[in-house]
Amino acid sequence: MTDRILLGHGSGGTLMHKLIRDVIAPRLGVAGFGDSALCDLSGMISGMNRIAFTTDSFVVSPIFFPGGNIGDLSVYGTVNDLAVAGATPKYLSAGLIIEEGFPLADFISVLDSMAGAALAANVKVVAGDTKVVQKGSAEGIYINTTGIGIFEHGILPLVPSSIEPGDYIIQSAPIGLHGISIIAQRNGISFNPPIVSDLAPLNLLTGDMISFAGSIAAMRDPTRGGLSTTLCEIAIESGFGVEVHEERILVPPQVKGACELLGLDPMYVANEGVLIAFVRRDMATAILSAMHGNDLGKDALVIGEVTDSHPGRVILHTLIGGKRIVDMLPGDMLPRIC
Amino acid sequence: MTDRILLGHGSGGTLMHKLIRDVIAPRLGVAGFGDSALCDLSGMISGMNRIAFTTDSFVVSPIFFPGGNIGDLSVYGTVNDLAVAGATPKYLSAGLIIEEGFPLADFISVLDSMAGAALAANVKVVAGDTKVVQKGSAEGIYINTTGIGIFEHGILPLVPSSIEPGDYIIQSAPIGLHGISIIAQRNGISFNPPIVSDLAPLNLLTGDMISFAGSIAAMRDPTRGGLSTTLCEIAIESGFGVEVHEERILVPPQVKGACELLGLDPMYVANEGVLIAFVRRDMATAILSAMHGNDLGKDALVIGEVTDSHPGRVILHTLIGGKRIVDMLPGDMLPRIC
Repeated sequence: MTDRILLGHGSGGTLMHKLIRDVIAPRLGVAGFGDSALCDLSGMISGMNRIAFTTDSFVVSPIFFPGGNIGDLSVYGTVNDLAVAGATPKYLSAGLIIEEGFPLADFISVLDSMAGAALAANVKVVAGDTKVVQKGSAEGIYINTTGIGIFEHGILPLVPSSIEPGDYIIQSAPIGLHGISIIAQRNGISFNPPIVSDLAPLNLLTGDMISFAGSIAAMRDPTRGGLSTTLCEIAIESGFGVEVHEERILVPPQVKGACELLGLDPMYVANEGVLIAFVRRDMATAILSAMHGNDLGKDALVIGEVTDSHPGRVILHTLIGGKRIVDMLPGDMLPRIC
Repeated sequence: MTDRILLGHGSGGTLMHKLIRDVIAPRLGVAGFGDSALCDLSGMISGMNRIAFTTDSFVVSPIFFPGGNIGDLSVYGTVNDLAVAGATPKYLSAGLIIEEGFPLADFISVLDSMAGAALAANVKVVAGDTKVVQKGSAEGIYINTTGIGIFEHGILPLVPSSIEPGDYIIQSAPIGLHGISIIAQRNGISFNPPIVSDLAPLNLLTGDMISFAGSIAAMRDPTRGGLSTTLCEIAIESGFGVEVHEERILVPPQVKGACELLGLDPMYVANEGVLIAFVRRDMATAILSAMHGNDLGKDALVIGEVTDSHPGRVILHTLIGGKRIVDMLPGDMLPRIC
């Protein structure tokens, strides 16, 4: 391991996972540095049970991008982490680190976006903090949001250990839009039609799926590190193998084109409005049908399945009929994407 | 109002309060951007009541200072916000924003301090997030911690609206040590004996006071903006006047000396191990006695009282027998202190 922190340590990929596993987790004892934690409140207050608790700091650059800005991104990012844990997002905190000289008009735009997003996602921002650092000690604004969600209607938290061989893997929406929209904006590239981030509150979709909760083993939103990294995480955490079919994976043509141009693989590009669900095979059709009734899941489809062969590994069946092992994003393909 | 964010907007004083009141609160609807929020969970899960929820981002410069570093500061800072709300701190999240190139050894020191502080304060870090920004886009490391506390033994949350005229104001420990230790370290000034931050987990002290909860109207920890700003906040929020006596306020001699040298007023210097309690007059002796049994409150004393004259204002009775109106810190006397 290097003796300095590298950009890749924040990438969501292998380097970050190693930093968490080897350096952070042994000290802070946080197993899922990145997912929702389950806070057990039972025994503290009578009848009190578990809440979901998750944190995310947003350092996206540029702050404004096609389809959103750091404000709504910071609300939906945390809401989505709670939603894919099976929780109903309720309360958010907002920790603002602002660079001295940041235009007040931009600050107000960001706050307005946060407020609009909170309204859309039906959460309340109830706690906050404001810090200002000298010019040059941050880039515009960084926002931490931390969220609390509850488990309604006796829903149990969704955890990868519930995954079983034979489960189908559902992709809710096309991948690659968020990351490519940021990269394009950052580098002054325009596409026609423009590539717009898929940023959206996934709790609106999971709300429509929750009546099938008993048949949903786990859900994830493939943000930093993209679909490949999420599938690798699930394969490792569940202890089973994952197989996906390239021909089924939804990638919008303009994302494909942009990725070819930029030398990127859409399977590693961040998303902010996509969820991956691991569901019991016999209920997949019913779950898909519920998802298709929601705008955020109208293109949902099965892209693969869980297997008991090659445990801990993800295999991609390629378009040309081959098989390829999929790894996590190793380093820092796309820094500052969220 | 200026059209750009100034350092003073993060100072804890008047400028920050105006930014929150005029810009942030109307959009996010957060009344107490800085204090613990009360999350009402009743009706969501049977028997579930309220939890306390607070967030704080730490951008202290330098990262290591006499008496602590950004790691234990980030744990105790949030723990203390929960403790002075009358809550028992339980769970923390940690959002790390790290500058590319930050030495791994320093990162490990910071994590070890967080872990030690969590152990000392009896809280668990259960959720986390790691972001890395390019060299020059942050200064070493910024940490957001967000905390959840519960109200045990039927304790009600402490709120300034419970304050009544006649209540005594208790100072738990000498003021000025944290801020001066940071400023001295930042500017390469050494004192003999050295000035060491008072950084400490105040829940260990409030735990000893909680049996008197019915006689404690409110508590606050005077961090950014110092004792003066905290007293002004309480005067405004309670709608009553506050009178304090300069001769009683504990200021260590070395803090007095350093303040004279640096042109600072200790009443505006940040603390990280001091609490101010507003208590019923007839129980003050018993509460002080409980505090004196704890190392963090061994010097506790009454420094003033609440009055129904001059509502919303803080009056300082000075050493030379005069009276002076105390205002909030206007701007940015001491940036990056926490």
